[in-house]
Amino acid sequence: MPITTREWQLAARPHGEPTPDDFRLVELERPDPAEGQVAVRMLVMSVDPYMRGRMNPGKSYAARWEIGETMKGGAVGRVVASRSPAVPEGALVLADAAWRDVAVLDAAHVRVLPELPGIPPSYHLGVLGMPGLTAWAGLFRLAEFREGDTVFVSGAAGAVGSLVGQFAKLNGAAAVVGSAGTPEKVRWLTEEVGFTRAFDYHDGPVAELLAGAAPEGIDVFFDNVGGEHLEAAIGAFNEFGRGALCGAISGYNATEPAPGPRNMFMMVTKKLSLRGFIVGDHADLRDEFTTKVTRMVTSGDLVVRETVREGLENAVDTFLDLLRGGNTGKMVVKLAD
Amino acid sequence: MPITTREWQLAARPHGEPTPDDFRLVELERPDPAEGQVAVRMLVMSVDPYMRGRMNPGKSYAARWEIGETMKGGAVGRVVASRSPAVPEGALVLADAAWRDVAVLDAAHVRVLPELPGIPPSYHLGVLGMPGLTAWAGLFRLAEFREGDTVFVSGAAGAVGSLVGQFAKLNGAAAVVGSAGTPEKVRWLTEEVGFTRAFDYHDGPVAELLAGAAPEGIDVFFDNVGGEHLEAAIGAFNEFGRGALCGAISGYNATEPAPGPRNMFMMVTKKLSLRGFIVGDHADLRDEFTTKVTRMVTSGDLVVRETVREGLENAVDTFLDLLRGGNTGKMVVKLAD
Repeated sequence: MPITTREWQLAARPHGEPTPDDFRLVELERPDPAEGQVAVRMLVMSVDPYMRGRMNPGKSYAARWEIGETMKGGAVGRVVASRSPAVPEGALVLADAAWRDVAVLDAAHVRVLPELPGIPPSYHLGVLGMPGLTAWAGLFRLAEFREGDTVFVSGAAGAVGSLVGQFAKLNGAAAVVGSAGTPEKVRWLTEEVGFTRAFDYHDGPVAELLAGAAPEGIDVFFDNVGGEHLEAAIGAFNEFGRGALCGAISGYNATEPAPGPRNMFMMVTKKLSLRGFIVGDHADLRDEFTTKVTRMVTSGDLVVRETVREGLENAVDTFLDLLRGGNTGKMVVKLAD
Repeated sequence: MPITTREWQLAARPHGEPTPDDFRLVELERPDPAEGQVAVRMLVMSVDPYMRGRMNPGKSYAARWEIGETMKGGAVGRVVASRSPAVPEGALVLADAAWRDVAVLDAAHVRVLPELPGIPPSYHLGVLGMPGLTAWAGLFRLAEFREGDTVFVSGAAGAVGSLVGQFAKLNGAAAVVGSAGTPEKVRWLTEEVGFTRAFDYHDGPVAELLAGAAPEGIDVFFDNVGGEHLEAAIGAFNEFGRGALCGAISGYNATEPAPGPRNMFMMVTKKLSLRGFIVGDHADLRDEFTTKVTRMVTSGDLVVRETVREGLENAVDTFLDLLRGGNTGKMVVKLAD
């Protein structure tokens, strides 16, 4: 008995900011699982800034979405039919397989998740998932965070940024400074998340706002934004400052290359390092990360916030809103209970 | 009996390109060495691109030259009078103490040099001195050079660049590509120094020239030039490319900040690292460096070239010529036999 499912397909490649017309919601029938496969009903799916790159024609680090094919992305679901003993019916699983209601997948392409009290399924897409590991790897491995460092996080109210700041604080940062795009986010960062200081980057030149928020200079920079933020951080670095470059959302919809930092000579004079990275290259950290961060979540040490929207039919609007900064913390779309 | 000496003093801080009027040659009398001091007659002095930074009013990594005071810089000399048993008369020494004929120095501020056959004094200012260790630390420590890498060196015909290429070649680079500023330098690099390919950066956009010279992409970039060269290297990097940023001579005389690289987003997508450095932070490598490179020099494995000018009175013109690219290999001024 074939399975009826709705799926989002890429309809067109955007030039600049994507619009709803670049996507198409279709209803399809998919065959039942074959030997070694499982059918997964999706409970919650992820929208992430990096997905903007999957819409582009060129090569990116994540597999490109093809026109007329169903888009992929992180999701947590429940196995509703199984022909694999390793992934039984009823199991909670993670797969790179939304944007859809139901997916039929090779069992080798899903990961069975533990079901722990206090850990809702969506956390495996955020604090305990790809964004969490991104924050962890970037802060500790790429930026070589050390106790006593002052840390600056751009896009600090996002899924990754809000964790970077907290990981740093819990590990002895002298101060944690963040930028965000609305007064509410700034308030949330300082009043609830525990950032030492934060600013709204619309309030003036980032370099000036950062100098005011981190008069002692910064030792570590975790960049989700790029552009003007990167130049400001280079200017604010103390000697031997270290930057982990995770994303550059300020340029994702750009149609022309943004101007680069005009102060690159400071890389030499202040002996700075900048290192770009993709979380997929740091999967060796996952066991340590999962153990430690699960404990932080269940103990209540971490402030975890999600922006949750409902319904597969709203997934595209949610994604477009994410690219405009409409999220605080991790943004997800709830698909089923 | 006081010592008569000529000394170059900084007369003015330049705005943009320095001119001879920014310097002044004076004749002075200096007192004989006190207890614990030595008098050193300088044999050869160094002019280096980094000295341009010492002329500026702001803070740089090397101590600023003060107006009306004698400029400092690397030099090799012979001790002509000593009141320190550790540094006897007749010793060959290295000191940060030219631009002058004779310096009276605390013995603790000079380093006694070995006198080896086949090693002229000037080599301690170049291949066996600061430029050599700069090439060594940048290539092996900062850029983490590995056998099989393709290496791109900007300003490859200079004191540092010509060594970077040779160290890489001797350690199993797949290819070594260099840029330089004249056809003669390009020819020297490929025909005599052993670079795989080289180009004159005046011949077109650096990105295009580099793509032609390194069609396989580059794994390591050693930057002496900055600006357009840095952007070109970021564009040409293979995944996990590593850049050691040593200098940015293209901007040293600039009065406005140069545009930055417009392709910084590739830092993330290609997982690149860029690390600025100053050789002084890597003195722990000096013993290994000196042992290995002395052997390379005496065995004839290294092509060592110097551009030698004569006479303290010509030191400023030599320095200004260096900033315009008038040197091939290490540039020095011979002061005495």
